[in-house]
Amino acid sequence: MEFNKILVINVNEEQLSPSHWVIIDTISKKRTHLAKDSNKIVENLNDTDCLLVGFGVKIDKNTIDNTPNLKYIGMFGTGYGNIDINYAKSKKIVVCNVPNYSTESVAELVFAVILEQLRELETAKKQTRNGNYSEDGFLPTEIKNKKFGILGLGNIGKRVAELALCFGADVGYWSRNRKIDIESKGIKYENADDLILKSDFLTLHLSHTNDTENFLNKDRIQKIKKGAIVINTSPMELVDIDALEIRLKSEDITFILDHSDEMTKENLERLSKYPNCIIYPPIGCITKEAGINKQEIFVENIENFLQGAPTNKVN
Amino acid sequence: MEFNKILVINVNEEQLSPSHWVIIDTISKKRTHLAKDSNKIVENLNDTDCLLVGFGVKIDKNTIDNTPNLKYIGMFGTGYGNIDINYAKSKKIVVCNVPNYSTESVAELVFAVILEQLRELETAKKQTRNGNYSEDGFLPTEIKNKKFGILGLGNIGKRVAELALCFGADVGYWSRNRKIDIESKGIKYENADDLILKSDFLTLHLSHTNDTENFLNKDRIQKIKKGAIVINTSPMELVDIDALEIRLKSEDITFILDHSDEMTKENLERLSKYPNCIIYPPIGCITKEAGINKQEIFVENIENFLQGAPTNKVN
Repeated sequence: MEFNKILVINVNEEQLSPSHWVIIDTISKKRTHLAKDSNKIVENLNDTDCLLVGFGVKIDKNTIDNTPNLKYIGMFGTGYGNIDINYAKSKKIVVCNVPNYSTESVAELVFAVILEQLRELETAKKQTRNGNYSEDGFLPTEIKNKKFGILGLGNIGKRVAELALCFGADVGYWSRNRKIDIESKGIKYENADDLILKSDFLTLHLSHTNDTENFLNKDRIQKIKKGAIVINTSPMELVDIDALEIRLKSEDITFILDHSDEMTKENLERLSKYPNCIIYPPIGCITKEAGINKQEIFVENIENFLQGAPTNKVN
Repeated sequence: MEFNKILVINVNEEQLSPSHWVIIDTISKKRTHLAKDSNKIVENLNDTDCLLVGFGVKIDKNTIDNTPNLKYIGMFGTGYGNIDINYAKSKKIVVCNVPNYSTESVAELVFAVILEQLRELETAKKQTRNGNYSEDGFLPTEIKNKKFGILGLGNIGKRVAELALCFGADVGYWSRNRKIDIESKGIKYENADDLILKSDFLTLHLSHTNDTENFLNKDRIQKIKKGAIVINTSPMELVDIDALEIRLKSEDITFILDHSDEMTKENLERLSKYPNCIIYPPIGCITKEAGINKQEIFVENIENFLQGAPTNKVN
């Protein structure tokens, strides 16, 4: 089985390897590319039976209605919030995404940014570059024996929990569902508010849904332990930015974020003013290894759909 | 039992907590402090039966001969290379040191500096501070599945090996003696030269002895895998600096050091010229927790000696 026409929207040539593009060409008669601009989509949809879409592309009821032969939507990424998956399902269109490609990439980043902060590596490097080789003034602490709270225990949260346990931390988690398998390793299930109150390191690994929007609300942000390091590699929609700003002003927590692409420049600039808010570009998911995983899962999803055994179906 | 007179050389008041000084005063009739200058030692030695010495203090045959009532030398640190422990033994003088106080502190630093380097955190922070929030140009790699070579498997090397295993690396070690217990965890014993040739991360955890001086010699430095990150938190006497400089010029390895106090400023400045040589101040051993361990072990050693059961005796 093959597709008649694959329309690729907002997945650039360099985001897939040449060999992956060859596979895509093998399984379709035609392939057309569009940039993100969704106004242009209408022109090309009549003979399209497969849509491959990148970040930020909106596939709504209207687009689906304008694509009468559509059978498959492949999301090049994990988040599919811009795709009307229920309407697609009602039209028997399969939607697949790419989950878990960056588990290790994000988990390693969490420890990278914590340890960088604890050991003041930026200051240390700058100082030796200026010819001062002394350790005077540095008084770091360790991860070992500290309270390490994880909010959200999906694949990434779970991997972070395992690593925190290796570092000898006292690891607690909160998640919508308890994960008994991980509790047997010595990771404790705790009330989210208790974790926020007690944790020296607090890291968010929740996905952004209506339920989790502003999860770290004003009340919870005020409860964060003095001196804590809070890490958010998840969407900043989980955090009430106004309340965070107030807490940052008190200078008694450090907030580290690997910002999500959705975050407005205005909000980034607002938080940038605080030396105790450390902003990284969205480098959490972009290791070379994560990139390879992402491509492979994306293309395998398409092949598996054609073979009648779709993988990573979300609707 | 108590000491008649404790002479403290080069251990500053602030290096021990007030409560530890109280203990030391309880177990001695008198206490005198001297700075590091060993010329002054002679004046005070006749009634001294306990020497407590800090970093860099030389206790040679002559000093021992001039201290006729000496019973105990307590080293405030791990390295006792400046103390003639054999001559002390011949005079029935017990020498004790403080080992293993900083195992976790050093092991966490090793992962801090590796991850900082892999994720280019300094560049990333600088960029967002300048208003550029893009991930363009970053292409990090992961620790997972990389070859992780550990040279020297004492307490620190062992802990680094355990953590590398948690991160999912392919961990190999070389040590003078094989450690079968750790091999059962999946850490492989390998020839030092093979490890040097194959490792993506290579970390040195050997102590400095006549045997290990210039352990990373010209031949071995030339063999380091292209693209490898080499970490040395051990004394730089393990490394042939001339040969390292030549290899750094080829710009195909990164060398990260947490310099030892023994390293000359001249050598530090020499290596500072290379952007692929990252020099940290000696921040490996100085976490708050390591400092507390060090004080406790040091004072317990003295108490245990007086109770007839010396601990951490090195002669």
